[in-house]
Amino acid sequence: MRLIVDAMGGDNAPEAIVRGAALACRKRGVDLTLVGDESRIREYLPSGFECRVVHTKKTVSMDDDPLSILRENRESSMGVGLSLLKEDGDAFLSAGSTGALVAGASSRVIFGKIRGIKRAAIATVLPLSNPVLLMDSGANVEVSAEELLQFALMGSVYSKRLLGVSDPRVALVNNGSEPTKGTPVYREAYGLLLGDPDINFVGNVEGRDIPMDFCDVAVCDGFVGNVILKLCEGFGKFMSKSLREMFMHDPLTKLGGALTKRGIGRLKASLDFSKYGGAPVLGIPKPVIKAHGSSDEEAVGSAVDQAVYFYENGICGEIAALASKFREERK
Amino acid sequence: MRLIVDAMGGDNAPEAIVRGAALACRKRGVDLTLVGDESRIREYLPSGFECRVVHTKKTVSMDDDPLSILRENRESSMGVGLSLLKEDGDAFLSAGSTGALVAGASSRVIFGKIRGIKRAAIATVLPLSNPVLLMDSGANVEVSAEELLQFALMGSVYSKRLLGVSDPRVALVNNGSEPTKGTPVYREAYGLLLGDPDINFVGNVEGRDIPMDFCDVAVCDGFVGNVILKLCEGFGKFMSKSLREMFMHDPLTKLGGALTKRGIGRLKASLDFSKYGGAPVLGIPKPVIKAHGSSDEEAVGSAVDQAVYFYENGICGEIAALASKFREERK
Repeated sequence: MRLIVDAMGGDNAPEAIVRGAALACRKRGVDLTLVGDESRIREYLPSGFECRVVHTKKTVSMDDDPLSILRENRESSMGVGLSLLKEDGDAFLSAGSTGALVAGASSRVIFGKIRGIKRAAIATVLPLSNPVLLMDSGANVEVSAEELLQFALMGSVYSKRLLGVSDPRVALVNNGSEPTKGTPVYREAYGLLLGDPDINFVGNVEGRDIPMDFCDVAVCDGFVGNVILKLCEGFGKFMSKSLREMFMHDPLTKLGGALTKRGIGRLKASLDFSKYGGAPVLGIPKPVIKAHGSSDEEAVGSAVDQAVYFYENGICGEIAALASKFREERK
Repeated sequence: MRLIVDAMGGDNAPEAIVRGAALACRKRGVDLTLVGDESRIREYLPSGFECRVVHTKKTVSMDDDPLSILRENRESSMGVGLSLLKEDGDAFLSAGSTGALVAGASSRVIFGKIRGIKRAAIATVLPLSNPVLLMDSGANVEVSAEELLQFALMGSVYSKRLLGVSDPRVALVNNGSEPTKGTPVYREAYGLLLGDPDINFVGNVEGRDIPMDFCDVAVCDGFVGNVILKLCEGFGKFMSKSLREMFMHDPLTKLGGALTKRGIGRLKASLDFSKYGGAPVLGIPKPVIKAHGSSDEEAVGSAVDQAVYFYENGICGEIAALASKFREERK
């Protein structure tokens, strides 16, 4: 397996990316290509580790227009990495701009989507007591009902093949449980989801039921998904802060905290977003993984593991098979 | 002050509504009118308590189309209550259907909005370490940029006058901090909010910063607001469950829990939605309060207190004064 990695994307690039990717690829026997500033990459490569390094001068920054990857940023580490994926790679990993990654992978200029798929989307696992795959979690702020249906199909395949859920319960995020709830797009999507034999649709999910083991895949547009994803992150932090305040209140609670120390650790670990590695971009014919922007060496390693499983599980092929029905309908 | 209360709305109606409203009105010297099934209302009225009871046969249910309040449900306890508010009331309270309440209060058939206000909206306080007023939290699933601006103005007045925030920080919920983020409506709203001298606009707020004391008023459409509101409720429950599991894990953590008992109580109380009473419907010329559907006697009492403050603080007048600029712009 040949993995292409954007060495320059993310807050801790290139050091954490180079070291994390190199160590994980060595462990798993994966052939690694690092793309970016060659001299800086070589600075952090573990001694004795062999890999291909492709030099680029540019990097897509978070402030750049995502679509710049198709124009002036096409020769960036991300743009060149995606081109290498198309040529001879098996999977691609970047901790850079989500928007640019989705735009670059989606566009025929560089790569292109699976036939029949209208929009690529980002799937993120919410680290709740039952993991929920949130689809889309930020790539598409405005969507059609058919696109929501496709997000459901792709999320369902990923949940089954990579998260090991046998018959994933798919729910539509909405402002009420009744089929009449939501905007016209959501009401139409409800009907499409209900009528699709490839989806185990369990109805609308309200915000309060997302952490309550109601569904395995939560489907929504990228605006709502992004708010949910980041609110979950915010709550994780809020919870840590509240626990600290609770235990630091007085000598008695401090003793209580000391006795509960391992439990606190378990609880915090259970809310850790990085344990699920990166977020896959679904709808592309080859595995593309978006690692969290703040990924450290360990998180990059988890994302590499994920890229390997993603590649080995034939998820892209299964999505392509399901997407063929959208091609046929259009004929 | 004359308060009109829909005695039949909510999960615990009429008992909790009648008793909670009667006790709170007696304490505060408020003149109470209860609307609903007279014999059932009289069953729960505290002995010796004097109030007007207006009999109605119908009740708007949660399954009814909200707009039915303008037609077949106009003679329901909620419909008649809103008519009484228009005739001679000073404030109205209901724990019934949010959609019907907003539709009924908004429509000229029964009541009507403040001149210049395009849509009434529900404002809910998220019980975080810094309370955040979420506006709209469920009434309008699709909105225009100007409506978001009006939500911001109304929320700002309410936050100042009723929650005591001197110069409320107003933020627009979005999928990123940059002004270019979001749908076209949100991008346009960003510009309107930035340019309005009556608003202390602090920019876009991402989900992760909502619990982080970033803003006092969070502005969004009712679809997103409803998801945020209910996700916060869900997280409160999730947090309680996680704490229980953490402390019940083994004898040591159980002892830790016993020592931290008061702290746990404080933390749970801090996440209690009912402490802020009900949610005001803003944009109507008189105070209208939506109490939580699951309100018990105590929560109804808090909602009555809130209706009294709402009435005494001249909030509707201040919103009307701000709304006059929208009337002028249209001339």
